[in-house]
Amino acid sequence: MTTDTKGRYRFNVEPFTEDFQGLISWSNLGNILLRCAQMHAENNGFGFGPMSREQLSWVFSRLIIEMDRRPHTGETFEVTTWPSEIFRQFTVRLFEVRDGEGIIIGRAYSVWALIDINSRQPADLMNLPTGPFTDYLIPAPDFPITGPGRIRVKSEQPALTRTAHVSDLDINGHVNSIRSLEMVLDLFPLETYQTQQVHKVELAYAKEAFCGDTLQFFKEEVQPGVHNIEVRRGEGDVTLRAQVVFK
Amino acid sequence: MTTDTKGRYRFNVEPFTEDFQGLISWSNLGNILLRCAQMHAENNGFGFGPMSREQLSWVFSRLIIEMDRRPHTGETFEVTTWPSEIFRQFTVRLFEVRDGEGIIIGRAYSVWALIDINSRQPADLMNLPTGPFTDYLIPAPDFPITGPGRIRVKSEQPALTRTAHVSDLDINGHVNSIRSLEMVLDLFPLETYQTQQVHKVELAYAKEAFCGDTLQFFKEEVQPGVHNIEVRRGEGDVTLRAQVVFK
Repeated sequence: MTTDTKGRYRFNVEPFTEDFQGLISWSNLGNILLRCAQMHAENNGFGFGPMSREQLSWVFSRLIIEMDRRPHTGETFEVTTWPSEIFRQFTVRLFEVRDGEGIIIGRAYSVWALIDINSRQPADLMNLPTGPFTDYLIPAPDFPITGPGRIRVKSEQPALTRTAHVSDLDINGHVNSIRSLEMVLDLFPLETYQTQQVHKVELAYAKEAFCGDTLQFFKEEVQPGVHNIEVRRGEGDVTLRAQVVFK
Repeated sequence: MTTDTKGRYRFNVEPFTEDFQGLISWSNLGNILLRCAQMHAENNGFGFGPMSREQLSWVFSRLIIEMDRRPHTGETFEVTTWPSEIFRQFTVRLFEVRDGEGIIIGRAYSVWALIDINSRQPADLMNLPTGPFTDYLIPAPDFPITGPGRIRVKSEQPALTRTAHVSDLDINGHVNSIRSLEMVLDLFPLETYQTQQVHKVELAYAKEAFCGDTLQFFKEEVQPGVHNIEVRRGEGDVTLRAQVVFK
Protein backbone atom coordinates (compact mmCIF):
# COMPACT_ATOMS: atom_id res chain seq x y z
CA MET A 1 0.00 0.00 0.00
CA THR A 2 1.27 3.46 -0.83
CA THR A 3 -0.30 6.59 0.52
CA ASP A 4 0.74 10.01 -0.70
CA THR A 5 -1.59 11.81 1.56
CA LYS A 6 -0.23 14.42 3.85
CA GLY A 7 -2.47 15.16 6.81
CA ARG A 8 -4.08 18.60 6.62
CA TYR A 9 -5.86 19.99 9.67
CA ARG A 10 -7.45 23.40 10.17
CA PHE A 11 -7.55 25.22 13.48
CA ASN A 12 -8.66 28.49 14.89
CA VAL A 13 -6.79 30.21 17.71
CA GLU A 14 -9.37 29.82 20.46
CA PRO A 15 -9.73 32.26 23.35
CA PHE A 16 -7.78 30.99 26.40
CA THR A 17 -5.10 29.36 24.25
CA GLU A 18 -3.05 32.55 23.80
CA ASP A 19 -0.02 33.88 25.59
CA PHE A 20 0.14 37.37 27.13
CA GLN A 21 0.66 38.86 23.66
CA GLY A 22 -2.54 37.43 22.22
CA LEU A 23 -0.68 34.93 20.04
CA ILE A 24 -1.26 31.20 20.29
CA SER A 25 1.03 30.08 23.10
CA TRP A 26 4.02 27.93 22.21
CA SER A 27 2.60 25.13 24.36
CA ASN A 28 -0.80 25.13 22.66
CA LEU A 29 0.92 25.25 19.28
CA GLY A 30 3.18 22.34 20.28
CA ASN A 31 0.19 20.39 21.50
CA ILE A 32 -1.63 20.96 18.22
CA LEU A 33 1.38 19.63 16.30
CA LEU A 34 1.34 16.46 18.42
CA ARG A 35 -2.40 16.06 17.86
CA CYS A 36 -1.90 16.40 14.10
CA ALA A 37 0.85 13.76 14.21
CA GLN A 38 -1.48 11.49 16.11
CA MET A 39 -4.48 12.06 13.82
CA HIS A 40 -2.42 11.53 10.69
CA ALA A 41 -0.83 8.34 12.05
CA GLU A 42 -4.25 7.09 13.14
CA ASN A 43 -5.81 7.81 9.73
CA ASN A 44 -3.03 5.84 8.06
CA GLY A 45 -3.25 2.82 10.35
CA PHE A 46 -0.10 3.38 12.38
CA GLY A 47 -1.48 5.49 15.21
CA PHE A 48 -1.22 5.05 18.93
CA GLY A 49 -4.29 2.80 19.02
CA PRO A 50 -3.30 0.26 16.33
CA MET A 51 0.31 0.23 17.48
CA SER A 52 -0.54 -0.35 21.13
CA ARG A 53 -2.61 -3.40 20.11
CA GLU A 54 0.68 -4.69 18.65
CA GLN A 55 2.45 -3.85 21.94
CA LEU A 56 4.31 -1.08 20.15
CA SER A 57 4.44 2.53 21.23
CA TRP A 58 5.67 5.74 19.56
CA VAL A 59 8.31 7.55 21.59
CA PHE A 60 8.92 11.20 20.93
CA SER A 61 12.58 12.04 20.74
CA ARG A 62 13.10 15.50 19.16
CA LEU A 63 11.04 18.53 18.30
CA ILE A 64 12.17 21.63 16.43
CA ILE A 65 9.65 24.40 15.79
CA GLU A 66 10.55 27.45 13.70
CA MET A 67 7.92 30.18 13.42
CA ASP A 68 8.10 33.38 11.35
CA ARG A 69 5.09 34.45 13.34
CA ARG A 70 2.47 32.78 15.52
CA PRO A 71 -1.23 33.27 14.70
CA HIS A 72 -3.34 35.51 16.94
CA THR A 73 -6.71 35.01 18.65
CA GLY A 74 -9.44 34.15 16.17
CA GLU A 75 -7.01 33.56 13.32
CA THR A 76 -7.37 30.42 11.23
CA PHE A 77 -4.34 28.32 10.42
CA GLU A 78 -3.62 24.98 8.80
CA VAL A 79 -1.13 22.31 9.77
CA THR A 80 0.20 19.89 7.17
CA THR A 81 2.15 16.86 8.40
CA TRP A 82 3.79 13.77 6.95
CA PRO A 83 6.61 11.34 7.76
CA SER A 84 9.55 12.05 5.47
CA GLU A 85 12.36 9.62 6.21
CA ILE A 86 13.76 6.81 8.31
CA PHE A 87 17.21 6.86 9.83
CA ARG A 88 18.40 3.99 12.01
CA GLN A 89 15.45 3.18 14.32
CA PHE A 90 13.96 6.66 13.99
CA THR A 91 11.45 8.27 11.70
CA VAL A 92 11.22 11.97 10.89
CA ARG A 93 7.84 13.70 10.77
CA LEU A 94 7.63 17.18 9.26
CA PHE A 95 5.05 19.93 9.69
CA GLU A 96 4.13 23.11 7.83
CA VAL A 97 1.95 25.79 9.39
CA ARG A 98 0.05 28.03 6.95
CA ASP A 99 -2.03 31.11 7.59
CA GLY A 100 -5.56 31.61 6.19
CA GLU A 101 -4.12 32.69 2.83
CA GLY A 102 -1.96 29.60 2.47
CA ILE A 103 1.31 31.34 3.26
CA ILE A 104 3.77 29.27 5.29
CA ILE A 105 4.34 30.97 8.65
CA GLY A 106 6.19 28.15 10.38
CA ARG A 107 7.62 24.67 10.15
CA ALA A 108 8.46 21.87 12.51
CA TYR A 109 10.68 18.79 12.46
CA SER A 110 10.17 15.89 14.84
CA VAL A 111 11.86 12.55 15.45
CA TRP A 112 10.08 9.45 16.75
CA ALA A 113 10.97 5.85 17.51
CA LEU A 114 8.58 2.95 17.66
CA ILE A 115 9.45 0.74 20.61
CA ASP A 116 8.27 -2.61 21.86
CA ILE A 117 6.38 -1.93 25.12
CA ASN A 118 7.70 -5.09 26.77
CA SER A 119 11.34 -5.22 25.68
CA ARG A 120 11.74 -1.41 25.35
CA GLN A 121 13.70 -2.18 22.15
CA PRO A 122 13.02 -0.25 18.93
CA ALA A 123 10.77 -2.03 16.44
CA ASP A 124 11.91 -2.79 12.91
CA LEU A 125 10.20 -0.05 10.87
CA MET A 126 10.65 -2.11 7.69
CA ASN A 127 8.66 -4.97 9.09
CA LEU A 128 5.52 -3.67 10.81
CA PRO A 129 2.14 -5.42 11.02
CA THR A 130 0.84 -2.58 8.81
CA GLY A 131 3.58 -3.08 6.20
CA PRO A 132 6.97 -1.44 5.75
CA PHE A 133 6.95 2.10 7.10
CA THR A 134 8.80 3.30 3.96
CA ASP A 135 5.43 3.06 2.15
CA TYR A 136 4.27 6.09 4.11
CA LEU A 137 7.27 8.32 3.55
CA ILE A 138 7.05 11.48 1.46
CA PRO A 139 10.63 12.75 1.14
CA ALA A 140 11.21 16.49 1.48
CA PRO A 141 14.82 17.12 0.44
CA ASP A 142 14.35 20.90 0.37
CA PHE A 143 12.74 21.23 3.81
CA PRO A 144 14.51 24.17 5.51
CA ILE A 145 14.95 22.49 8.92
CA THR A 146 17.60 19.92 8.14
CA GLY A 147 17.85 18.09 11.42
CA PRO A 148 18.76 18.17 15.05
CA GLY A 149 21.76 20.15 16.21
CA ARG A 150 24.26 19.42 18.94
CA ILE A 151 23.44 21.19 22.15
CA ARG A 152 26.17 21.65 24.74
CA VAL A 153 26.03 23.65 27.96
CA LYS A 154 29.14 24.31 30.04
CA SER A 155 27.52 26.33 32.85
CA GLU A 156 27.50 24.62 36.25
CA GLN A 157 25.28 27.26 37.87
CA PRO A 158 21.55 26.53 37.45
CA ALA A 159 19.54 29.44 36.07
CA LEU A 160 16.40 27.96 37.64
CA THR A 161 15.41 25.03 39.81
CA ARG A 162 11.86 23.75 39.89
CA THR A 163 10.01 20.68 41.08
CA ALA A 164 7.94 18.48 38.78
CA HIS A 165 4.34 18.39 40.01
CA VAL A 166 1.30 16.24 39.25
CA SER A 167 -0.06 18.69 36.66
CA ASP A 168 3.19 18.35 34.70
CA LEU A 169 2.66 14.64 34.00
CA ASP A 170 1.47 12.96 30.83
CA ILE A 171 -0.51 9.74 30.53
CA ASN A 172 2.69 7.73 31.07
CA GLY A 173 3.42 9.48 34.37
CA HIS A 174 6.40 11.39 32.92
CA VAL A 175 6.85 15.16 32.79
CA ASN A 176 5.07 15.86 29.53
CA SER A 177 7.00 16.98 26.48
CA ILE A 178 5.00 20.14 25.94
CA ARG A 179 5.21 21.20 29.59
CA SER A 180 8.98 20.80 29.16
CA LEU A 181 8.77 23.31 26.31
CA GLU A 182 6.99 25.76 28.63
CA MET A 183 9.58 25.27 31.36
CA VAL A 184 12.37 26.02 28.88
CA LEU A 185 10.66 29.23 27.71
CA ASP A 186 10.09 30.21 31.36
CA LEU A 187 13.87 30.64 31.72
CA PHE A 188 13.55 34.05 30.08
CA PRO A 189 11.94 37.00 31.86
CA LEU A 190 8.86 38.83 30.65
CA GLU A 191 11.03 41.74 29.46
CA THR A 192 12.75 39.49 26.92
CA TYR A 193 9.41 38.54 25.38
CA GLN A 194 8.31 42.17 25.33
CA THR A 195 11.16 43.11 22.98
CA GLN A 196 12.08 39.89 21.17
CA GLN A 197 10.22 37.03 19.55
CA VAL A 198 11.26 33.39 19.76
CA HIS A 199 12.04 32.29 16.23
CA LYS A 200 13.08 28.69 16.91
CA VAL A 201 12.84 26.17 19.72
CA GLU A 202 14.57 22.82 19.68
CA LEU A 203 13.94 20.11 22.27
CA ALA A 204 15.93 16.89 22.57
CA TYR A 205 14.31 14.55 25.05
CA ALA A 206 16.94 12.46 26.86
CA LYS A 207 15.59 10.70 29.98
CA GLU A 208 12.14 10.86 31.52
CA ALA A 209 11.51 13.09 34.52
CA PHE A 210 9.02 12.01 37.19
CA CYS A 211 6.70 13.65 39.69
CA GLY A 212 8.67 15.08 42.60
CA ASP A 213 11.93 15.33 40.65
CA THR A 214 13.97 18.46 41.25
CA LEU A 215 14.82 19.83 37.83
CA GLN A 216 17.85 22.08 37.42
CA PHE A 217 17.98 24.27 34.31
CA PHE A 218 21.41 25.29 33.02
CA LYS A 219 21.52 27.97 30.35
CA GLU A 220 24.18 29.52 28.19
CA GLU A 221 24.03 32.14 25.42
CA VAL A 222 26.27 30.59 22.77
CA GLN A 223 25.74 33.31 20.15
CA PRO A 224 23.77 36.55 20.43
CA GLY A 225 20.14 35.46 20.84
CA VAL A 226 20.97 31.73 20.75
CA HIS A 227 20.57 29.99 24.11
CA ASN A 228 21.51 26.40 24.85
CA ILE A 229 19.77 24.75 27.79
CA GLU A 230 20.33 21.54 29.67
CA VAL A 231 17.95 20.15 32.28
CA ARG A 232 19.28 17.79 34.92
CA ARG A 233 17.31 15.71 37.38
CA GLY A 234 18.57 16.05 40.95
CA GLU A 235 22.34 15.64 40.93
CA GLY A 236 22.52 13.49 37.89
CA ASP A 237 20.91 12.56 34.61
CA VAL A 238 20.24 14.99 31.80
CA THR A 239 16.51 14.79 31.04
CA LEU A 240 16.35 17.39 28.27
CA ARG A 241 18.55 19.50 26.04
CA ALA A 242 17.08 22.52 24.33
CA GLN A 243 17.93 25.53 22.21
CA VAL A 244 15.96 28.77 22.02
CA VAL A 245 16.69 31.27 19.25
CA PHE A 246 15.33 34.82 19.44
CA LYS A 247 15.09 37.17 16.52
CA MET B 1 -35.35 39.49 22.78
CA THR B 2 -35.63 36.25 24.69
CA THR B 3 -33.43 33.28 24.01
CA ASP B 4 -34.05 29.95 25.68
CA THR B 5 -31.15 28.28 24.04
CA LYS B 6 -28.60 26.65 26.21
CA GLY B 7 -25.25 26.20 24.51
CA ARG B 8 -24.49 22.54 23.75
CA TYR B 9 -20.98 21.56 22.67
CA ARG B 10 -19.54 18.12 21.98
CA PHE B 11 -15.96 17.17 22.65
CA ASN B 12 -13.75 14.17 22.50
CA VAL B 13 -10.93 13.60 24.99
CA GLU B 14 -7.98 14.08 22.66
CA PRO B 15 -4.62 12.38 23.17
CA PHE B 16 -2.21 14.73 25.03
CA THR B 17 -5.03 16.31 27.03
CA GLU B 18 -5.09 13.61 29.74
CA ASP B 19 -3.53 13.44 33.15
CA PHE B 20 -1.34 10.55 34.29
CA GLN B 21 -4.45 8.39 34.82
CA GLY B 22 -5.68 8.72 31.24
CA LEU B 23 -8.58 10.98 32.22
CA ILE B 24 -9.04 14.46 30.81
CA SER B 25 -6.90 16.67 33.02
CA TRP B 26 -8.65 19.14 35.31
CA SER B 27 -6.95 21.99 33.47
CA ASN B 28 -8.10 20.85 30.03
CA LEU B 29 -11.59 20.31 31.39
CA GLY B 30 -11.57 23.79 32.97
CA ASN B 31 -10.36 25.28 29.72
CA ILE B 32 -13.14 23.58 27.79
CA LEU B 33 -15.72 25.03 30.20
CA LEU B 34 -14.32 28.52 29.60
CA ARG B 35 -14.40 27.98 25.85
CA CYS B 36 -18.03 26.87 26.06
CA ALA B 37 -18.89 29.98 28.08
CA GLN B 38 -17.18 32.10 25.47
CA MET B 39 -18.84 30.37 22.50
CA HIS B 40 -22.29 30.57 24.05
CA ALA B 41 -21.87 34.24 24.94
CA GLU B 42 -20.56 34.96 21.43
CA ASN B 43 -23.47 33.15 19.78
CA ASN B 44 -25.91 35.22 21.84
CA GLY B 45 -24.28 38.56 21.10
CA PHE B 46 -22.67 39.19 24.48
CA GLY B 47 -19.28 37.55 23.90
CA PHE B 48 -15.81 38.92 24.40
CA GLY B 49 -15.75 40.41 20.89
CA PRO B 50 -19.04 42.39 21.03
CA MET B 51 -18.45 43.46 24.62
CA SER B 52 -14.92 44.70 23.98
CA ARG B 53 -16.24 46.90 21.17
CA GLU B 54 -18.40 48.47 23.90
CA GLN B 55 -15.31 48.82 26.13
CA LEU B 56 -16.72 46.18 28.44
CA SER B 57 -14.97 43.04 29.52
CA TRP B 58 -16.08 39.87 31.30
CA VAL B 59 -14.14 39.19 34.50
CA PHE B 60 -14.11 35.71 35.90
CA SER B 61 -14.66 35.63 39.64
CA ARG B 62 -15.55 32.09 40.80
CA LEU B 63 -15.43 28.58 39.45
CA ILE B 64 -16.76 25.45 41.12
CA ILE B 65 -16.43 22.13 39.28
CA GLU B 66 -17.94 18.94 40.68
CA MET B 67 -17.27 15.72 38.77
CA ASP B 68 -18.60 12.24 39.51
CA ARG B 69 -16.00 11.06 37.04
CA ARG B 70 -13.87 12.61 34.34
CA PRO B 71 -14.02 11.16 30.80
CA HIS B 72 -11.07 9.13 29.50
CA THR B 73 -9.02 9.29 26.29
CA GLY B 74 -11.18 8.94 23.20
CA GLU B 75 -14.44 9.32 25.14
CA THR B 76 -17.06 11.73 23.84
CA PHE B 77 -18.74 14.17 26.19
CA GLU B 78 -21.09 17.11 25.93
CA VAL B 79 -21.09 20.41 27.80
CA THR B 80 -24.30 22.37 28.25
CA THR B 81 -24.04 25.94 29.52
CA TRP B 82 -26.33 28.88 30.24
CA PRO B 83 -26.49 31.98 32.45
CA SER B 84 -28.98 31.37 35.23
CA GLU B 85 -29.19 34.45 37.44
CA ILE B 86 -27.94 37.91 38.31
CA PHE B 87 -26.96 38.96 41.81
CA ARG B 88 -25.60 42.44 42.47
CA GLN B 89 -23.14 43.13 39.64
CA PHE B 90 -22.52 39.44 39.03
CA THR B 91 -24.01 36.83 36.75
CA VAL B 92 -23.99 33.09 37.35
CA ARG B 93 -23.24 30.71 34.49
CA LEU B 94 -23.94 27.00 34.97
CA PHE B 95 -22.58 23.94 33.19
CA GLU B 96 -23.57 20.30 32.89
CA VAL B 97 -21.18 17.67 31.56
CA ARG B 98 -22.79 14.56 30.02
CA ASP B 99 -21.23 11.36 28.82
CA GLY B 100 -21.94 9.80 25.41
CA GLU B 101 -25.18 8.28 26.73
CA GLY B 102 -26.51 11.56 28.04
CA ILE B 103 -25.85 10.81 31.69
CA ILE B 104 -24.69 13.78 33.77
CA ILE B 105 -21.15 13.08 35.04
CA GLY B 106 -20.36 16.56 36.31
CA ARG B 107 -21.52 20.10 36.85
CA ALA B 108 -19.96 23.51 37.21
CA TYR B 109 -20.97 26.87 38.62
CA SER B 110 -19.21 30.09 37.64
CA VAL B 111 -19.56 33.75 38.54
CA TRP B 112 -18.70 36.61 36.21
CA ALA B 113 -18.82 40.38 36.28
CA LEU B 114 -18.93 42.68 33.27
CA ILE B 115 -16.66 45.64 33.88
CA ASP B 116 -15.96 48.86 32.03
CA ILE B 117 -12.41 48.58 30.68
CA ASN B 118 -11.65 52.25 31.36
CA SER B 119 -13.27 52.89 34.73
CA ARG B 120 -12.86 49.27 36.02
CA GLN B 121 -16.40 49.67 37.41
CA PRO B 122 -19.02 46.96 36.92
CA ALA B 123 -21.46 47.57 34.09
CA ASP B 124 -25.21 47.70 34.67
CA LEU B 125 -26.35 44.27 33.49
CA MET B 126 -29.92 45.56 33.13
CA ASN B 127 -28.86 48.19 30.66
CA LEU B 128 -26.48 46.69 28.11
CA PRO B 129 -26.17 47.69 24.43
CA THR B 130 -27.50 44.20 23.64
CA GLY B 131 -30.52 44.65 25.92
CA PRO B 132 -31.11 43.69 29.56
CA PHE B 133 -29.08 40.65 30.52
CA THR B 134 -32.13 39.15 32.27
CA ASP B 135 -33.42 38.25 28.78
CA TYR B 136 -30.75 35.59 28.58
CA LEU B 137 -31.27 33.98 31.96
CA ILE B 138 -32.59 30.44 32.31
CA PRO B 139 -33.16 29.92 36.04
CA ALA B 140 -32.16 26.57 37.53
CA PRO B 141 -33.54 26.50 41.07
CA ASP B 142 -32.75 22.79 41.51
CA PHE B 143 -29.15 22.96 40.35
CA PRO B 144 -27.15 20.95 42.93
CA ILE B 145 -24.27 23.43 43.28
CA THR B 146 -25.94 26.24 45.13
CA GLY B 147 -23.19 28.80 45.27
CA PRO B 148 -19.81 29.79 46.52
CA GLY B 149 -18.70 28.83 50.01
CA ARG B 150 -16.59 30.71 52.51
CA ILE B 151 -12.99 29.61 52.43
CA ARG B 152 -10.78 30.37 55.43
CA VAL B 153 -7.24 29.21 56.10
CA LYS B 154 -5.54 29.73 59.44
CA SER B 155 -2.18 28.12 58.63
CA GLU B 156 0.76 30.54 58.53
CA GLN B 157 3.21 27.98 57.19
CA PRO B 158 3.18 27.78 53.37
CA ALA B 159 2.77 24.26 51.97
CA LEU B 160 4.44 25.37 48.74
CA THR B 161 6.05 28.48 47.30
CA ARG B 162 6.38 28.96 43.58
CA THR B 163 7.18 31.76 41.16
CA ALA B 164 4.79 32.87 38.42
CA HIS B 165 6.49 32.47 35.05
CA VAL B 166 5.75 33.71 31.52
CA SER B 167 3.97 30.48 30.54
CA ASP B 168 1.52 31.02 33.42
CA LEU B 169 0.13 34.25 31.93
CA ASP B 170 -3.11 34.84 30.08
CA ILE B 171 -3.78 37.41 27.37
CA ASN B 172 -4.14 40.11 30.04
CA GLY B 173 -0.70 39.39 31.48
CA HIS B 174 -2.14 37.86 34.68
CA VAL B 175 -1.54 34.35 35.99
CA ASN B 176 -4.28 32.52 34.14
CA SER B 177 -7.25 31.14 35.96
CA ILE B 178 -6.81 27.60 34.74
CA ARG B 179 -3.12 27.51 35.56
CA SER B 180 -4.15 28.58 39.06
CA LEU B 181 -6.35 25.48 39.19
CA GLU B 182 -3.34 23.33 38.27
CA MET B 183 -1.20 25.00 40.92
CA VAL B 184 -3.83 24.28 43.56
CA LEU B 185 -4.04 20.62 42.56
CA ASP B 186 -0.23 20.42 42.59
CA LEU B 187 -0.35 20.90 46.37
CA PHE B 188 -1.18 17.20 46.73
CA PRO B 189 1.41 14.50 46.06
CA LEU B 190 1.07 11.83 43.39
CA GLU B 191 0.22 9.23 46.07
CA THR B 192 -2.96 11.13 46.96
CA TYR B 193 -4.16 10.96 43.36
CA GLN B 194 -3.29 7.27 43.14
CA THR B 195 -5.77 6.42 45.91
CA GLN B 196 -8.34 9.25 45.86
CA GLN B 197 -10.24 11.18 43.22
CA VAL B 198 -10.94 14.89 43.37
CA HIS B 199 -14.70 15.29 43.53
CA LYS B 200 -14.96 19.05 43.71
CA VAL B 201 -12.73 22.07 43.17
CA GLU B 202 -13.73 25.60 44.03
CA LEU B 203 -11.71 28.65 43.02
CA ALA B 204 -12.39 32.18 44.21
CA TYR B 205 -10.23 34.67 42.33
CA ALA B 206 -9.32 37.63 44.53
CA LYS B 207 -6.48 39.75 43.10
CA GLU B 208 -4.45 39.25 39.96
CA ALA B 209 -0.99 37.71 40.16
CA PHE B 210 1.72 38.84 37.77
CA CYS B 211 4.83 37.39 36.16
CA GLY B 212 7.67 37.17 38.68
CA ASP B 213 5.35 37.14 41.71
CA THR B 214 6.29 34.75 44.47
CA LEU B 215 3.13 32.81 45.30
CA GLN B 216 2.76 31.21 48.71
CA PHE B 217 0.22 28.42 49.07
CA PHE B 218 -1.33 27.87 52.52
CA LYS B 219 -3.35 24.70 53.00
CA GLU B 220 -5.51 23.28 55.74
CA GLU B 221 -7.62 20.11 55.96
CA VAL B 222 -10.83 21.43 57.51
CA GLN B 223 -12.72 18.11 57.39
CA PRO B 224 -11.47 14.70 56.29
CA GLY B 225 -10.81 15.06 52.54
CA VAL B 226 -11.78 18.75 52.46
CA HIS B 227 -8.83 21.11 51.98
CA ASN B 228 -9.00 24.90 52.09
CA ILE B 229 -6.25 26.79 50.30
CA GLU B 230 -5.18 30.40 50.25
CA VAL B 231 -2.61 31.84 47.87
CA ARG B 232 -0.74 34.99 48.85
CA ARG B 233 1.49 37.12 46.68
CA GLY B 234 4.82 37.90 48.32
CA GLU B 235 4.17 39.09 51.85
CA GLY B 236 0.73 40.43 51.26
CA ASP B 237 -2.39 40.21 49.14
CA VAL B 238 -4.49 37.10 48.80
CA THR B 239 -4.70 36.32 45.07
CA LEU B 240 -6.82 33.17 45.28
CA ARG B 241 -8.87 31.09 47.70
CA ALA B 242 -9.66 27.51 46.83
CA GLN B 243 -11.19 24.33 48.16
CA VAL B 244 -10.42 20.81 47.02
CA VAL B 245 -12.68 17.94 48.06
CA PHE B 246 -11.55 14.34 47.62
CA LYS B 247 -13.86 11.34 47.68
